[in-house]
Amino acid sequence: MIDGIRLTKAPIRWGMVGGGRGSQIGYVHRSAALRDGYFSLLAGAFDLDPDRGRAFGADLGLDPGRCYPDWQAMFAAEAARADGIRCVTIATPNNTHYPITRAALLAGLHVICEKPLTFTTSEALDLQAIAADRGLVVGVAYGYSGHQMIEEAARLVADGTLGEIRIVNLQFAHGFHSAAVEHDNPAARWRVDPAFAGPSYVLGDLATHPLYVAQVICPHLRIRRLLCTRQSFVSSRAPLEDNATVLMEYEGGAVGTCWTSAVNAGAMHSQKVRIVGSKGSVEWWDEHPNQLRLEIQGEPARVLDRGMTYLHPQSLADDRIGAGHPEGLFDAWANLHCRFALAIEAHEDKDPARLAGLRYPGIEAGVEGVRWVEHCVRSADGGGVWVDYA
Amino acid sequence: MIDGIRLTKAPIRWGMVGGGRGSQIGYVHRSAALRDGYFSLLAGAFDLDPDRGRAFGADLGLDPGRCYPDWQAMFAAEAARADGIRCVTIATPNNTHYPITRAALLAGLHVICEKPLTFTTSEALDLQAIAADRGLVVGVAYGYSGHQMIEEAARLVADGTLGEIRIVNLQFAHGFHSAAVEHDNPAARWRVDPAFAGPSYVLGDLATHPLYVAQVICPHLRIRRLLCTRQSFVSSRAPLEDNATVLMEYEGGAVGTCWTSAVNAGAMHSQKVRIVGSKGSVEWWDEHPNQLRLEIQGEPARVLDRGMTYLHPQSLADDRIGAGHPEGLFDAWANLHCRFALAIEAHEDKDPARLAGLRYPGIEAGVEGVRWVEHCVRSADGGGVWVDYA
Amino acid sequence: MIDGIRLTKAPIRWGMVGGGRGSQIGYVHRSAALRDGYFSLLAGAFDLDPDRGRAFGADLGLDPGRCYPDWQAMFAAEAARADGIRCVTIATPNNTHYPITRAALLAGLHVICEKPLTFTTSEALDLQAIAADRGLVVGVAYGYSGHQMIEEAARLVADGTLGEIRIVNLQFAHGFHSAAVEHDNPAARWRVDPAFAGPSYVLGDLATHPLYVAQVICPHLRIRRLLCTRQSFVSSRAPLEDNATVLMEYEGGAVGTCWTSAVNAGAMHSQKVRIVGSKGSVEWWDEHPNQLRLEIQGEPARVLDRGMTYLHPQSLADDRIGAGHPEGLFDAWANLHCRFALAIEAHEDKDPARLAGLRYPGIEAGVEGVRWVEHCVRSADGGGVWVDYA
Amino acid sequence: MIDGIRLTKAPIRWGMVGGGRGSQIGYVHRSAALRDGYFSLLAGAFDLDPDRGRAFGADLGLDPGRCYPDWQAMFAAEAARADGIRCVTIATPNNTHYPITRAALLAGLHVICEKPLTFTTSEALDLQAIAADRGLVVGVAYGYSGHQMIEEAARLVADGTLGEIRIVNLQFAHGFHSAAVEHDNPAARWRVDPAFAGPSYVLGDLATHPLYVAQVICPHLRIRRLLCTRQSFVSSRAPLEDNATVLMEYEGGAVGTCWTSAVNAGAMHSQKVRIVGSKGSVEWWDEHPNQLRLEIQGEPARVLDRGMTYLHPQSLADDRIGAGHPEGLFDAWANLHCRFALAIEAHEDKDPARLAGLRYPGIEAGVEGVRWVEHCVRSADGGGVWVDYA
Repeated sequence: MIDGIRLTKAPIRWGMVGGGRGSQIGYVHRSAALRDGYFSLLAGAFDLDPDRGRAFGADLGLDPGRCYPDWQAMFAAEAARADGIRCVTIATPNNTHYPITRAALLAGLHVICEKPLTFTTSEALDLQAIAADRGLVVGVAYGYSGHQMIEEAARLVADGTLGEIRIVNLQFAHGFHSAAVEHDNPAARWRVDPAFAGPSYVLGDLATHPLYVAQVICPHLRIRRLLCTRQSFVSSRAPLEDNATVLMEYEGGAVGTCWTSAVNAGAMHSQKVRIVGSKGSVEWWDEHPNQLRLEIQGEPARVLDRGMTYLHPQSLADDRIGAGHPEGLFDAWANLHCRFALAIEAHEDKDPARLAGLRYPGIEAGVEGVRWVEHCVRSADGGGVWVDYA
Repeated sequence: MIDGIRLTKAPIRWGMVGGGRGSQIGYVHRSAALRDGYFSLLAGAFDLDPDRGRAFGADLGLDPGRCYPDWQAMFAAEAARADGIRCVTIATPNNTHYPITRAALLAGLHVICEKPLTFTTSEALDLQAIAADRGLVVGVAYGYSGHQMIEEAARLVADGTLGEIRIVNLQFAHGFHSAAVEHDNPAARWRVDPAFAGPSYVLGDLATHPLYVAQVICPHLRIRRLLCTRQSFVSSRAPLEDNATVLMEYEGGAVGTCWTSAVNAGAMHSQKVRIVGSKGSVEWWDEHPNQLRLEIQGEPARVLDRGMTYLHPQSLADDRIGAGHPEGLFDAWANLHCRFALAIEAHEDKDPARLAGLRYPGIEAGVEGVRWVEHCVRSADGGGVWVDYA
Repeated sequence: MIDGIRLTKAPIRWGMVGGGRGSQIGYVHRSAALRDGYFSLLAGAFDLDPDRGRAFGADLGLDPGRCYPDWQAMFAAEAARADGIRCVTIATPNNTHYPITRAALLAGLHVICEKPLTFTTSEALDLQAIAADRGLVVGVAYGYSGHQMIEEAARLVADGTLGEIRIVNLQFAHGFHSAAVEHDNPAARWRVDPAFAGPSYVLGDLATHPLYVAQVICPHLRIRRLLCTRQSFVSSRAPLEDNATVLMEYEGGAVGTCWTSAVNAGAMHSQKVRIVGSKGSVEWWDEHPNQLRLEIQGEPARVLDRGMTYLHPQSLADDRIGAGHPEGLFDAWANLHCRFALAIEAHEDKDPARLAGLRYPGIEAGVEGVRWVEHCVRSADGGGVWVDYA
Repeated sequence: MIDGIRLTKAPIRWGMVGGGRGSQIGYVHRSAALRDGYFSLLAGAFDLDPDRGRAFGADLGLDPGRCYPDWQAMFAAEAARADGIRCVTIATPNNTHYPITRAALLAGLHVICEKPLTFTTSEALDLQAIAADRGLVVGVAYGYSGHQMIEEAARLVADGTLGEIRIVNLQFAHGFHSAAVEHDNPAARWRVDPAFAGPSYVLGDLATHPLYVAQVICPHLRIRRLLCTRQSFVSSRAPLEDNATVLMEYEGGAVGTCWTSAVNAGAMHSQKVRIVGSKGSVEWWDEHPNQLRLEIQGEPARVLDRGMTYLHPQSLADDRIGAGHPEGLFDAWANLHCRFALAIEAHEDKDPARLAGLRYPGIEAGVEGVRWVEHCVRSADGGGVWVDYA
């Protein structure tokens, strides 16, 4: 039960890079971090334009002196304060995630970062090494994983309800970019520019979400090889894809598919995860996240609802309100931020025991997302060939 | 667009009565009021047990000196402070709503109150008169009305898309109290005790929600007469009902029905509102609040999604995130609290123009809910007879 | 399993009154009766226009000599033949059902009749007495009751899965007559003319369908009193209603509601039956008849599918094809006609034992439908008052 | 409008090979062919066991002299009769389709055959050549294609509503064979034995259905290359697959995927076809075949219903009953058999003009299904490699 009573000793002094005026994701981060009092927003480098960033910080009620012109200034100044921030969230375009995260870690800050963490696996591993070395948390913004029914799906796999897992079907395929909307929409433009977006568009921007959800549900599965084809149906987006399909083969014989698209015309999110075992399947859909469909072969299909006492106790741990009431994306993100805070406190207290059972998308998840995209792109650019996964 | 930037000059100094440790609805209120910075929680009388209430306030980070043993003490002490609270939320059992709200208004406080506002219409009108006299806002916790698709439904009625409204079908019928759960569950017990709950159980606790939603969608409809039957399927609940059906006839010829139940076994909320006009219908379901079904006779049924640009601009005003992402109950409540704050500021600034177009469940909605329940009970207790609505 | 192998000794020699060229329901009857070889179409008085009727019969491959100008001629001539028809289906406007059925019974014919059987209960009881006296079957065209999932719902009630039945919610509310389509559509016109349609429109035409389905599912329920309001939203239809709501109280304390409409703008059929017991509920929807939703309080909702082995054996008896494949309205009607034929053969063989367990809508169902409409109309025309059911 | 009035001059004299006692698909064929009087069942070689086949024919009311011990005898004897059959349906295990169809064509008979038509493309082309040479119709049992909403989808593609087609997503993935049910179920056993089933299980048995549906909807698409992986999750089924995924690239840049499975545990059919264009998408699901989801980017999703006047006129041509009433699989099959009969008559009358606009799964569809499976198997057995499609 989450009821606004903080489970940590104190709010974490916290700052932001990016996410300023007009940023949608910036509000999602702030709402999630501040919702239950786990973080306290004290500093920010919100905007490339220092004046605009400072004005935005003022609107948020920040001390103008802690609204910085850029992240370099922020990290330096905050490090010099006894009451400086201990954690920073990075909500900037993809190309900046690596240098800013690296600098933050080197400044001794815990980091919550938008995905993709970096453009290359070697960069991501570099961050992982630094974080491990310094005992810092890196949380990655796989926000959907905070929905409780994903925990329930994971428990149904873990307790054998589904039998041996055979098939993983992933999908995140919307239609909002069926036309070349980026021509008139700056917010969409950088996502299809490799200089800012990195080596992929929808693979990194969309597909890594259900990929991580599937990893939460089936933590035992290891990809053995994969194959990807990608297309740029709006041709000006090439080499970045607006549609892709990935085939995966896992160690042990399970197989997977992933369809991701920004040109699935007329579709909303269509983010769906279906896990098929030898006895039954579960299916989850992010647009209606409070339900989980459980289908046991030979039995009627069941619709499980968030908050019901027939769920595993762990699935109920993050309930904020009784069953029937819909929780939404903001609640899922807030759930994750509670765990980020708990993880940060456990790290700072050097008490790893408190991390046991605390599931959150950390640096490993960030590395894995980058690695997966890298392999997909290599496969696709090789003509849609199988590539071994390593 | 709601993005955490407060549109009022300052947070409203705010306190709570009730909603302490273990209260689910208390968290909903706090989350909604604090989410976007419109309110600042400074004082509370959270619990009948003063020590427990004080401890709870401390956990929320309040000044212990402003955690009061009871609301009488709070209203007196806060009134004496220059920086005293300006608004109080009342989240206590039903029987206390009237005296506490009355005292708060007399103490010059704006009030946000759980429904039902009172047990009788005359009490509700008394509150309305006091609030009008002092220029105070009374917001009523009809939280579902903060969902954006209800605004869209209202616009579709207002712009004539549905034609002349003929039929209003309301439903809020869950199954959680199919058995006599109150025997073992104190939180459920007071709801079926007339001394605490008032003259009704499900009519007041559940049915007034879709009733208010329908009033938002069809503000022009006036009930002419109604008929109600109510049952106590768990007989120990008598005279309070756990199931009821209401027939309504409106001025001008439209008709309505309302089914409300706590013994609709196996159902989750099943809160649905369907408005039928001469040309088409809309239907909304609180468990999946981001969709609105629009059915125009002779055309394919349409599923409208929150956040899409084909909606009326007013329906998009409270968007917190792009279409496809599900918003939930907490977002709807937070939307309402933004409006409560705007209304309070407009009242304090004596600038009624700013209230134009600001739709929120105020004292009139509270009065109407009480009046409707009163008529329903009179009809049911008369044997299920028609009673004129006045 | 139905596989086209007839379970009776021989096809029943069969004729039709009405249902000629352009009649939609005529085809439904023929398709159902002929589908599995239980009936053999040998004679007909298909049309008020003898020439057109004869031509239609010829198109169907009938002996022109057995295509009669009217039903009087047909009954007389067929009775005189050694190989005359033994059963007749009556698919004519409502006002003719009583005289034609009566004449058919007096001519010694089994009858399959469209509903409503008659305009008054006393007429219906007259038919019941004649049929009983002569040992003849009267089947009534409550076609939906042939869907297999209704059998499953009945079994779930009978075996106690739902507990004690508390609430019956019925609905058949389409929108096809939201406007005055009868002005340009002769097929719709007679339905709103009391001379042809009888004392009601939607109550008799639509509501009696879910009413009978509920009787199949809950055969133990007896209405104690009811209350009805009806409206003519297209005013030229008055006194016949295009919308009505019925409240029912059953012996023993259960309650029911029924909403029926032809002005539920934008809706397709919306024929839904929900039965609520003390432990759980079932819900069936005629537009997706292969599924039955089973909701046990405290357990996940279940979706039961036609043809699955987890169903009661009796629910599988009429399977025509494996689970997953959708069966439709024509299959339901054909199922009923198999049972009509089995009932006719059992009657002719004077072997009532073979009727045990053979559930079909017979004369009792026809009487009950008329009685229910009669009470509804009396209540509505009395101002929406309670009338005792007798 | 289909109303049981035959549009051809006379019923086609018709026989069957296979489909005897206990055969589910046999009944589907008979019901479809006989339903509207287009075919007249006069002869059969229903069973490998001559006595059992003869008894079955007698139960169907056939002349015992025309119940043959095998198809060879039937083709010879019927050819010798002036009133011999003109068309034969072949509902036998896969391995016999080629020789029996070949012999039937050589005997001058039109053929309606279960899929797959043959095991190899060259065999299929052989049949095509013979049929063309003799002017005979070969209808293939792609029964789902008779559903009317598939016609509507085809019209929406043809009239440009969806824009340029980009993506074809196909799925037919049930869970009925998640366990090795064939060990105890003879009806399932031959399907996983290459000697009887041919080179594939689910690819041929399931996937060719949505493949053909997609061809009907998008007749302009030509596969350029494809890649397939297949698995035998029940290992005793190897080399035949119980799960497969196919990637397709079409001429012109469109792409497709197909997932087919018999181990999608807990799923019913899950046969879904989604066609994505540059402007919008359509999606059809065989378990609820009366609806078609139309999603235009930037507009609310629409649910189109069978029988509604907003559909293209051609989609309404096969209506048997008004909108709202569900039609099912049997109706779809019957629709196809009307067209088979019309095609046969047109061929016999040597009037090809009457074939214009008459869409049915003919020999080309049969050839294409075999060719597709052949390519899939070649790709899969090569390690999941791209194979050019020719």
